[in-house]
Amino acid sequence: MQSAPSIQKLLDELERLPGVGPKSAQRIAYYILNTESSQAIRLADAIHEVKEQVRFCGTCFNYAESELCEICASPIRVHEQICVVSEPKDIMPIERTGVFGGVYHVLHGALSPLDGIGPDELKISELLRRLGSEEVDEVVIATNPNVEGEATAAYLARLIRPLGVKVTRPASGLPVGGDLEYADEVTLGRAMEGRLEI
Amino acid sequence: MQSAPSIQKLLDELERLPGVGPKSAQRIAYYILNTESSQAIRLADAIHEVKEQVRFCGTCFNYAESELCEICASPIRVHEQICVVSEPKDIMPIERTGVFGGVYHVLHGALSPLDGIGPDELKISELLRRLGSEEVDEVVIATNPNVEGEATAAYLARLIRPLGVKVTRPASGLPVGGDLEYADEVTLGRAMEGRLEI
Repeated sequence: MQSAPSIQKLLDELERLPGVGPKSAQRIAYYILNTESSQAIRLADAIHEVKEQVRFCGTCFNYAESELCEICASPIRVHEQICVVSEPKDIMPIERTGVFGGVYHVLHGALSPLDGIGPDELKISELLRRLGSEEVDEVVIATNPNVEGEATAAYLARLIRPLGVKVTRPASGLPVGGDLEYADEVTLGRAMEGRLEI
Repeated sequence: MQSAPSIQKLLDELERLPGVGPKSAQRIAYYILNTESSQAIRLADAIHEVKEQVRFCGTCFNYAESELCEICASPIRVHEQICVVSEPKDIMPIERTGVFGGVYHVLHGALSPLDGIGPDELKISELLRRLGSEEVDEVVIATNPNVEGEATAAYLARLIRPLGVKVTRPASGLPVGGDLEYADEVTLGRAMEGRLEI
């Protein structure tokens, strides 16, 4: 198929993006070709800017544009509560719930011995250093509820509990709006075990 | 939700793309954040390049990087056959079939009086000029098989037939692999009318 080289190059780059197949890449490429230059350039510039300006927060290892991320720098956040997550992208969904007013700590992964990811590959020593130097009441370990995430949570809990800090984990249970009939056994089992008086 | 300004800007720009909602924008933004700089910059540069280098072919009004597009400039294409399409993006699917070896002409729209799109808004006079100056045996009118596309095809056929040029249109009929039971009446009617001896 004959296509101008610069269009082919754009298609190739677009197809590398997650969730973008050949058809979507084509739709996006034609959109970029048809849209006014200023708008297409704004997208290109936004990509440049993000790669130039975004680094990791010196405290929690979330994405940041300065030494500290906006959450760590905020005076209205409760700095005595640290929520530990695997990846920066896990912070956004928790923020969206609006129920957590503390700060975060990003491990940048989860323990996975088979993949060669041990404690030294994660930001665990950095977390322990924070617990030693800051006043922390509670660590919420919000790693994913899968094998690696659970193992990481158990490992961290063993390390942190002796420091006299409360260690918690978000409840497992039935998703709101879900159907008992279709819940898997493990989730339903956890929901039964964690039952609350009403 | 607190997010670094440059990340928010990237999210905003990504969400403008067709078929990219908030969730895909987030997935793509995190991919751009995590990927090595050189690869992200390649995407940004590809966008710049396409906006700087791509213009319309002086003959057929397809996208081109020089005075002529690659198809018009190709000596192995049959320049006596012109396939008329509404948009540049209609060329790629026809090329992919591999059955058309001629050249193209892009109208940049279809007749739609209600939207104020008459013959003067389309590259019709440019097509007639080509028919006057080039040796053309056949014009295949491959506008979309919808109201505007059919009207445009009928209008063009009336203009071109008197010039002694054969005017054709791709067959309407049952999609290959389709199911007779689920074909709409118009399509099935066309397929019956256009039946071929086997």
